[in-house]
Amino acid sequence: MATINDIGVAAAINIVTAVAFLIAFAILRIQPVNDRVYFPKWYLKGLRTSSIQTGGFGSKFINLDFRSYVRFLNWMPEALKMPEPELVDHAGLDSVVYLRIYLLGLKIFFPIACVAFTAMVPVNWTNKGLDRLKHSNISYSDIDKLSLSNIPNGSVSRFWVHLCMAYAITFWTCFMLKREYQNIALMRLQFLANDQMRPNQYTVLVRNIPTDPHESICELVEHFFKVNHPDHYLTFQAVHDATKLSELVRTRKQMQNLLDYTNNKHMRAQSKRPVVKMGFLGCCGEEVDGIKYYTSMVESLTREISEEKQRLRTGTKSIVPAAFVSFKSRWGAAVCAQTQQSRDPTEWLTEWAAEPRDIYYDNLALPYVDLKIRRIIVAVAYFFLTFFFMIPIAFVQSLANIEGIEKAFPFLKALIEVKLLKSIIQGFLPGIALKIFLLFLPRILMQMSKFEGFVSNSSLERRAASRFYMFQFINVFLGSIITGTAFEQLNSFLNQSANDIPKTIGVSIPMKATFFITYIMVDGWAGVAGEILRLKPLIIYHLKNSFLVRTEQDREEATDPGTIGFNTGEPQIQLYFLLGLVYAAVSPILLPFIIIFFGLAYIVYRHQVINVYNQKYESAGKFWPDVHRRVVTALIVSQLLLMGLLSTKQAPKSTPLLLVLPVLTIGFHMHCKGRYQPAFVTYPLQEAMIKDTLERTREPNLNLKAFFRNAYAHPEFRVGENLDEEMAVERPDRTPDLVATKRGSWRNTPLPSKHSWPDSV
Amino acid sequence: MATINDIGVAAAINIVTAVAFLIAFAILRIQPVNDRVYFPKWYLKGLRTSSIQTGGFGSKFINLDFRSYVRFLNWMPEALKMPEPELVDHAGLDSVVYLRIYLLGLKIFFPIACVAFTAMVPVNWTNKGLDRLKHSNISYSDIDKLSLSNIPNGSVSRFWVHLCMAYAITFWTCFMLKREYQNIALMRLQFLANDQMRPNQYTVLVRNIPTDPHESICELVEHFFKVNHPDHYLTFQAVHDATKLSELVRTRKQMQNLLDYTNNKHMRAQSKRPVVKMGFLGCCGEEVDGIKYYTSMVESLTREISEEKQRLRTGTKSIVPAAFVSFKSRWGAAVCAQTQQSRDPTEWLTEWAAEPRDIYYDNLALPYVDLKIRRIIVAVAYFFLTFFFMIPIAFVQSLANIEGIEKAFPFLKALIEVKLLKSIIQGFLPGIALKIFLLFLPRILMQMSKFEGFVSNSSLERRAASRFYMFQFINVFLGSIITGTAFEQLNSFLNQSANDIPKTIGVSIPMKATFFITYIMVDGWAGVAGEILRLKPLIIYHLKNSFLVRTEQDREEATDPGTIGFNTGEPQIQLYFLLGLVYAAVSPILLPFIIIFFGLAYIVYRHQVINVYNQKYESAGKFWPDVHRRVVTALIVSQLLLMGLLSTKQAPKSTPLLLVLPVLTIGFHMHCKGRYQPAFVTYPLQEAMIKDTLERTREPNLNLKAFFRNAYAHPEFRVGENLDEEMAVERPDRTPDLVATKRGSWRNTPLPSKHSWPDSV
Repeated sequence: MATINDIGVAAAINIVTAVAFLIAFAILRIQPVNDRVYFPKWYLKGLRTSSIQTGGFGSKFINLDFRSYVRFLNWMPEALKMPEPELVDHAGLDSVVYLRIYLLGLKIFFPIACVAFTAMVPVNWTNKGLDRLKHSNISYSDIDKLSLSNIPNGSVSRFWVHLCMAYAITFWTCFMLKREYQNIALMRLQFLANDQMRPNQYTVLVRNIPTDPHESICELVEHFFKVNHPDHYLTFQAVHDATKLSELVRTRKQMQNLLDYTNNKHMRAQSKRPVVKMGFLGCCGEEVDGIKYYTSMVESLTREISEEKQRLRTGTKSIVPAAFVSFKSRWGAAVCAQTQQSRDPTEWLTEWAAEPRDIYYDNLALPYVDLKIRRIIVAVAYFFLTFFFMIPIAFVQSLANIEGIEKAFPFLKALIEVKLLKSIIQGFLPGIALKIFLLFLPRILMQMSKFEGFVSNSSLERRAASRFYMFQFINVFLGSIITGTAFEQLNSFLNQSANDIPKTIGVSIPMKATFFITYIMVDGWAGVAGEILRLKPLIIYHLKNSFLVRTEQDREEATDPGTIGFNTGEPQIQLYFLLGLVYAAVSPILLPFIIIFFGLAYIVYRHQVINVYNQKYESAGKFWPDVHRRVVTALIVSQLLLMGLLSTKQAPKSTPLLLVLPVLTIGFHMHCKGRYQPAFVTYPLQEAMIKDTLERTREPNLNLKAFFRNAYAHPEFRVGENLDEEMAVERPDRTPDLVATKRGSWRNTPLPSKHSWPDSV
Repeated sequence: MATINDIGVAAAINIVTAVAFLIAFAILRIQPVNDRVYFPKWYLKGLRTSSIQTGGFGSKFINLDFRSYVRFLNWMPEALKMPEPELVDHAGLDSVVYLRIYLLGLKIFFPIACVAFTAMVPVNWTNKGLDRLKHSNISYSDIDKLSLSNIPNGSVSRFWVHLCMAYAITFWTCFMLKREYQNIALMRLQFLANDQMRPNQYTVLVRNIPTDPHESICELVEHFFKVNHPDHYLTFQAVHDATKLSELVRTRKQMQNLLDYTNNKHMRAQSKRPVVKMGFLGCCGEEVDGIKYYTSMVESLTREISEEKQRLRTGTKSIVPAAFVSFKSRWGAAVCAQTQQSRDPTEWLTEWAAEPRDIYYDNLALPYVDLKIRRIIVAVAYFFLTFFFMIPIAFVQSLANIEGIEKAFPFLKALIEVKLLKSIIQGFLPGIALKIFLLFLPRILMQMSKFEGFVSNSSLERRAASRFYMFQFINVFLGSIITGTAFEQLNSFLNQSANDIPKTIGVSIPMKATFFITYIMVDGWAGVAGEILRLKPLIIYHLKNSFLVRTEQDREEATDPGTIGFNTGEPQIQLYFLLGLVYAAVSPILLPFIIIFFGLAYIVYRHQVINVYNQKYESAGKFWPDVHRRVVTALIVSQLLLMGLLSTKQAPKSTPLLLVLPVLTIGFHMHCKGRYQPAFVTYPLQEAMIKDTLERTREPNLNLKAFFRNAYAHPEFRVGENLDEEMAVERPDRTPDLVATKRGSWRNTPLPSKHSWPDSV
């Protein structure tokens, strides 16, 4: 058990680290040479084209204006200055809604902390519950005196305070959650209403188009929608299987990079022409001229790419059974997206198309049954990942010990036997496997989501986020409290009664407060300060800058502004919500640390959103229901754990009173779900009609068909090329009501097929 | 523990009872005087107008053709004769699908029983596991030798048979369930496709219409749908709050009955004019002439009714914020029913309108928040009803003892003290409260569903059925196995680990086989045989016939053909599914009894469906997803219990193998849900379009508006009156696109309001 001193030392270390990061950032950001790393957003928006220079020699690279070093924290008020509506225009609604999660944390925990410190801490402090332990061998610290542990068992009157606190926390949290849900639903609807015309407003993604022996997919789609949405259907865009094309484009980019690198090398050392070895990994084999080789490679790849494009355009074999169907009006699209099309509910599945840049093309072709099977596989895989991830890591750890290394590489023996080095390796090795795993976990989870078959990047990120949160909940939160691998926990839970589980966890909670304080400081404070420093993009940018960049455009491509990273960031915030809610009624000493985290993170991320991140898509805050649900879950967990804790404190009368809380909270969640969630899922017909009518009045002669032409073409088609019209298999409009069909059985087309024109299809 | 002899005696008693019922039925049904009780369906369909007479004196009342008594079982083959498609025409799809539940039971359990008796019973029988118990004081019977109890602990090789059996049961049940789901989904779609034109195909029920200070509800509805469904909206029908009207009509009917009764009395005894006492309950007070009094009452009520109707028609105050909106095409209605209309998801809620006769008008006006609150109240009430229903009954039981009666009515003392009578009362009294409660339980559950706010009789019945099933599951199934009140069970479950619960229940299962065999014979065999006798309708019909009936029409009204009673019948069948699946791998001796139940019930209900029942509505088999879900649940329960049982038999290796089964079954359920459930919920646009097109070709000049005119008027309006046109507030068609509005803020109407005609609204 840590004393206040220990916490103080840890806090000091972490504050120093965080401040060091912030100072480093303050210095680095005002160097013109780093301008593209710290202000890429402005370059991307075209509002800045070259770094600001203060004049004088070397000022192109280093800031020589020493006055600017004094104002090293002035980015903070600047980050807060931009008003919210402007920020929506500047960075999109997703970023603004994301920032509001931090604000929500502040709004929930600041008042709770105030109440807790004025009402509950004195009640805890003025007890002698822990003094009895002085004579036993259980150690405790002064910090624990502030917590519920300090209240002696059965002290009913004192527990009333905690009970009231639990009620206050629940009501306040629900109130804030509801207000926020309402606000964000409104913001989303306003955003969608004010949004400029976008293809996704008119477009529906159709998947699982059935195969027909008589018609191609393109003909089938056109006939189906002309028949079943006769007044609203406009056009469609077929989806091509462009796996090979993507592969070719990627290879060409690598080759181009190597060519640039070789060229640069040659320019610096004109005397020697760079050579490339043709053998394994460029280490051996015949030597050829580097520049010539890479130039020829790039050329041949370019040829192959254009051939592949031609093949995709003209052939129909590469068309997958999915299509983007566009309608004449938003109303038509809203109707098609919300209704069932065909008798067989596994065919002609329609849903709102995401933004073109949000679409994840690789998953569009997956058939219905595949999707179901993949979902089960991923669920099972995720279960094993969460509960058994320690097994392979322990295995690697057992391999990677000193003896193992000595056996594998006997020549290193002398080196390893040096005492200092040995202890470092021994301390370092076992952890490294775990660290590497945790570093790659978000990517593994993302791959899982991709395998599961989601069709938009936003939904991929949302699913990965909820998996990451579950992982953290089980392995970080429960894992730290009960100490044991997740599987051991699972086993003990299965063998415990439903009444005992909250008790087991609840009892350990107050004891772990100091651990979580340290965790918040390391992961939260220092982590957020590290985020603003952007060390990795900084290094990569300068590396690329020295080896690859030749033109200004290259330099632009060398900058990786990154995104908010919803799939890693949001679960982290949620963990702090969970800690805050669980500890609010038990050890409120945790709250100030959490509040500082939320405040610091809010400023830092607001700065990053304004100056750095470039969101890859805009989902208009579609992730909020997830955020809301997870906070509500955390609230319910906190209530159950408090119930468990109090029932061990011989205050059994509190149980029924506390049991009301989760029931109320679940009711609250259901209410919110019914009331606000539809705003994030469907598009009401009334809204669609209003926008349609406004637009018809404003631009009566809009050529929608041209507008949609290549909106949803595969990104590889769009890169710097004029897309031909053949992509979307279109033919001149015929009588809209009569659809000619080649098919023998006309079960699906209610119109008589004898009127078909033999030449028309 | 019952021996085979005990079972034999019980079986004999029940078989005798059942056969007695059947013989009584066979005799009663061929009496012409009972014709309307046993063949009401044919009268209602107009295929029979008077009872078949065999000729001779008295043959109007009693069948004198003795040959027909010999063929007393010939209704059985007759009941099976009518082919299914004809039965659909004759009795509707609901009845046919309901009968298929019994067939499903036969299809599932007959092959399982065959396999169990050839493969598993010999394995169980040839063991001596129970012989060891001979010396202990646990009694067992020969029947238990057929069950899993007879296998000694740890006899791994023998348990393999049970494991395989569990797999076979799961796969066979799932296979049959899937096939049946598929068939019924197809039958439903075909039924809907072949169905004649009905108003509900074109109509959507709109609820939670918001209030507007500037427009009445009728204007609001018309404007909203003209704006948001401009091409498809046709007309609407307002819903009136007709509570007072219904009340008046009901009173008039009572008065009419009394008048008829008095008239009949007078006709028999001409000399004495019947008198009515005006005081309390007709027992005291001034005497008046009965016929005159009732005639005047009926007349004044008729006047009041027509005044009330007039008031409802002309006034707008009685219009509730709900409406039936009809569209020009099925497509338009399908779109409106499946989409969200307004930005606020709690307003303008649309759903498919049920058939007019299926609508439960009293709940149409409930606001959104009320519905949510009512749902929570009912959930809590149901919880208490299920777990604590024994408390009030025990209280009544404690009151209703001999001493209590003696105290309350001292004059009865001498009578009660007679020994025989005393023992009868003591044996009878405690049970009577429970019996009355169980008799009224379906009605209580139905009232709960009504309070919860469902808007169609079919959904009311479905909800009541699922509540009844849960009640039976907890109080009959678990209650009989663990013996203890539901609340005691709940308490012990909360204090047991998740691993132990299936063990506790599983262990008791084999011991309860004999109890359930008796239960099946009493509740199933005798119950079904009693159903066909229709004792209650028979008595009521003859009572009404002698006191009230004067005309042929009266006689028609005196017949109550009844309905299948989904809310009581289906949960009963489900209990047998549960018992069959749970015992199939444990004590297969139960299976023949269940098979006999399913077979007998199938024949009996088929007979009743053909000759008796008159369904009040047609939901086209919408209840099948519920049936499917409950059978799947029973399957999962059986798997978990088998797992618990085997884990106590020291066959722990079986657990992981058995754990696969529930996972697979849940996967199967999700698959079925995704694949077939939509057919029972939504109406695919393709189907709607096909029917629309066919109809446009067949009847191009159909006047839909006239067709809808009073389709959804409150039933009290429809009774024998020509409904005036004012009911649906309609005005001559104006330009369809421009909607005049009186309202100040035109936030919801995208069209400019300055074009409004001052005279038009």
